[in-house]
Amino acid sequence: MISWNNFDTLASYRELSEVERVNVAEVMSGENGAERVKKYSVPMASGLVFNYGAKAVDDKILAVLAKLAEEAQLTEKYEALYNGEVINTGEKRLVLHQLTRGQLGNDVIADGVNKREFYVNEQKKIAEFAEKVHAGEITNEAGEKFTTVVQIGIGGSDLGPRALYLALENWAKTNNTLKMNAAFISNVDPDDASAVLKNIDVARSVFIVVSKSGTTLETLTNESFVKDALTKAGLNPSRHMIAVTSETSPLAKSADYLAAFFMDDYIGGRYSSTSGVGGAVLSLAFGPDVFARILAGAAEEDVLAKNKDLMQNPAMLDALIGVYERNVLGYLDTAVLPYSQALSRFPAHLQQLDMESNGKSVNRFGEPVDYVTGPVIFGEPGTNGQHSFYQLLHQGTDIVPLQFIGFKNNQMENDVVIQGSTSQQKLCANVAAQIVAFACGKEDENRNKRFEGGRPSSIIIGDRLTPEALGTLLAHFENKVMFQGFVWNINSFDQEGVQLGKVLAKKVLAHDTDGALAVYSDLLNI
Amino acid sequence: MISWNNFDTLASYRELSEVERVNVAEVMSGENGAERVKKYSVPMASGLVFNYGAKAVDDKILAVLAKLAEEAQLTEKYEALYNGEVINTGEKRLVLHQLTRGQLGNDVIADGVNKREFYVNEQKKIAEFAEKVHAGEITNEAGEKFTTVVQIGIGGSDLGPRALYLALENWAKTNNTLKMNAAFISNVDPDDASAVLKNIDVARSVFIVVSKSGTTLETLTNESFVKDALTKAGLNPSRHMIAVTSETSPLAKSADYLAAFFMDDYIGGRYSSTSGVGGAVLSLAFGPDVFARILAGAAEEDVLAKNKDLMQNPAMLDALIGVYERNVLGYLDTAVLPYSQALSRFPAHLQQLDMESNGKSVNRFGEPVDYVTGPVIFGEPGTNGQHSFYQLLHQGTDIVPLQFIGFKNNQMENDVVIQGSTSQQKLCANVAAQIVAFACGKEDENRNKRFEGGRPSSIIIGDRLTPEALGTLLAHFENKVMFQGFVWNINSFDQEGVQLGKVLAKKVLAHDTDGALAVYSDLLNI
Repeated sequence: MISWNNFDTLASYRELSEVERVNVAEVMSGENGAERVKKYSVPMASGLVFNYGAKAVDDKILAVLAKLAEEAQLTEKYEALYNGEVINTGEKRLVLHQLTRGQLGNDVIADGVNKREFYVNEQKKIAEFAEKVHAGEITNEAGEKFTTVVQIGIGGSDLGPRALYLALENWAKTNNTLKMNAAFISNVDPDDASAVLKNIDVARSVFIVVSKSGTTLETLTNESFVKDALTKAGLNPSRHMIAVTSETSPLAKSADYLAAFFMDDYIGGRYSSTSGVGGAVLSLAFGPDVFARILAGAAEEDVLAKNKDLMQNPAMLDALIGVYERNVLGYLDTAVLPYSQALSRFPAHLQQLDMESNGKSVNRFGEPVDYVTGPVIFGEPGTNGQHSFYQLLHQGTDIVPLQFIGFKNNQMENDVVIQGSTSQQKLCANVAAQIVAFACGKEDENRNKRFEGGRPSSIIIGDRLTPEALGTLLAHFENKVMFQGFVWNINSFDQEGVQLGKVLAKKVLAHDTDGALAVYSDLLNI
Repeated sequence: MISWNNFDTLASYRELSEVERVNVAEVMSGENGAERVKKYSVPMASGLVFNYGAKAVDDKILAVLAKLAEEAQLTEKYEALYNGEVINTGEKRLVLHQLTRGQLGNDVIADGVNKREFYVNEQKKIAEFAEKVHAGEITNEAGEKFTTVVQIGIGGSDLGPRALYLALENWAKTNNTLKMNAAFISNVDPDDASAVLKNIDVARSVFIVVSKSGTTLETLTNESFVKDALTKAGLNPSRHMIAVTSETSPLAKSADYLAAFFMDDYIGGRYSSTSGVGGAVLSLAFGPDVFARILAGAAEEDVLAKNKDLMQNPAMLDALIGVYERNVLGYLDTAVLPYSQALSRFPAHLQQLDMESNGKSVNRFGEPVDYVTGPVIFGEPGTNGQHSFYQLLHQGTDIVPLQFIGFKNNQMENDVVIQGSTSQQKLCANVAAQIVAFACGKEDENRNKRFEGGRPSSIIIGDRLTPEALGTLLAHFENKVMFQGFVWNINSFDQEGVQLGKVLAKKVLAHDTDGALAVYSDLLNI
């Protein structure tokens, strides 16, 4: 039997604040440090490893975290989720994004449908459509093949799919599996759509309108923007557009689209990359087999997250160490630092995933909580970040926990040896060096050149950023955020915080304003 | 006479913590809110306005901040800086980036040279070079015009120039002043350079190697990477490369370059966008006249920052309100939220500018300080952010101060009317709505739909994002960061925190490691 209790009512909550803290600089020094790094490591799917040697934990703290996992019934709650309980209580919805990539438990029947079959069927429809486009069986009116796919969507319909596309674009080019170039239109700023349209051949482009509800203001506006451009170019918009939406949305059965592919209310936007929301654009860009490999990497990681043994469950470990940093050590931010240019937008996806899921002040029953919840997430790829904001991370007055990601090999074939090492070796040497610099610091008589260390980090290491590795990374962070939400007893699957702005923006556009809102509207000339 | 004192030794430090706090939700409601927004507004250069109506200040707090400005001698310190005192004490250097765009005070003679004349002369050399490239007088060996410019640099040689290029790329296309496309190579990840080279015609490209010292590992590595590619394509690298560096660097007098343009040690990397570091790429891409317009917008803003009246000095106001939020209200982060897709990478530039400048724990004399210093900066353009991390900003357990930027008009000519409003109107309506939603919140019986408000923000509003407006924005934030550094009594112009990682990375590449560093090196297969 599952009980949903606030974090601060658990025995392990108090125990966690009382257990002796770890001095990272001290434990990471010398041979003890070497032993820690070897020991505090757990395998992930797709050959990745989650290493938390440089985190501010030790066996005692990990033992309390294991108690917490049990007391908070984390695996039981995950089981309830993938077996189809109404975990999204606010919106009274199931939470089924894991089901888009595998069957973790029982059949989930909702609205009279086996949901796994439904998701698999949509994937098949997308794969068939993509293959016809690639084969030139579906073309523009002039019979020419489509060469570009443009996703029109915002938030979860943009950030995740865009991050995944960028993560594999160069890999696909190198492996000759880039079927179509992809572009993305998201912002209601008209210059976003204009700029994308200027850079592509619209006559050879297929556009994917992505909106679960079919009512997202930005997306419908940009759809009209694109239709306008197509019409002006003498093209028939309905021959250039497909929709990814829910079956009940206004977009679902429209003759305006070449095809429509379906998701449902049980897939939240920020969790939708493995549904048709990511599936359509990635299958068109890379081919359905590559998308299937992403799903396989995610599915394998989802299975690992079932493990009741905390020490063998990387997502749960990552989650609980994060909770310890947030609620006991009092750190607000977490920086995500992938040493891979291909992951340049992955931090932006995690920013949404984490902050929109766990940036909440009430528990799942709508009662205010007395402890801090989700962290602020930001990040840029290394080594770029080293020449930017790392100064503050090393020597600032506040401590920011760090989440590194690194790969032994790069994606493309080119590399050069300069001063005895390849660029890839330099990249890897830098991430290794940074972890130790942050953890151990360095004494110096000149205080300005002194590093106090004690700045905790973890690293996920892989062989190469393949589709499987990418799927594993994606699922790892989704599951980490889910477990943290369970600990904090919040609903990680709604986002009521975005509603008020929408309501007020409509008032501004209707010129129905007073007070400060009227003045700002004037200042902005609306 | 200037005295450099720690913030907590000033009388106004204590006064600031004792003055009654402002309840933002309360004061921003009703007609009082409207009056505040009208009143708390100060003109910037280029027709921009800095509005701080929704910040947690009132006349009493502003009066103490004015005292603080006087007690900390902010304008006097600025004057000392632009008149050429050694403000960068750690490195014993002058700080002269403002001099790249105007003469604010006395002639600054250093190393026997009038520095204003030196910077202007380099600008002229760059302008002449760019005009010859545009006119086809400088071409590739086949006599073909160069069509693309590629900046090779990292940190300040990348983020600022890249942000400025993206900010004006579409504006330039619309105004037929895009002379060359620009691309950027920064990361030592070999896939960064490979991907850029795959997307351009190297035979028609000119590469700018940007490194003040001429020793930046990433940049030299990427330079070799590019030379390799040029040679493999049967091209002569020295006919395709120019350098921006200091006169004493190994790059300065090399026959490897078509030309070399100079900066000096008095321009820090993150402050170098208005030197040749930004000047070369922006003059080649947009033409020297557009770059001159950026400088003019920055120069005008620099003059405003001289104003001793806090209420007429937007950069100083922004700075001191930020100090109040950081040191009295205890907020760690600041989110930068431009409602303009063109400013998509401007937050990344500000992230470096601010965090590398003020992420320090010792004062300018190398003594530890007992108060918090620089904030963590992150941000994405709106409305995209609304569908991402705004959930936490509205309803999370921590408060994050917000810095909005908005323009009445978009850059490109296209727009569409959907549901009675243009996309640009929707964009502006959203930023107005968000400010009020964050400030005032909304009661709701359902606590999950309740917004407590009290989340402070400011907004910079402009007519359109022109070169002048962009220069003004750039200088505003540079000066804001400078004033905050003065208040915190830190050296905002060095970055010792980046050194340790470099040293350790070299050890890894030399296989000179032990302890944890040796294990991480093994794990990463170096």
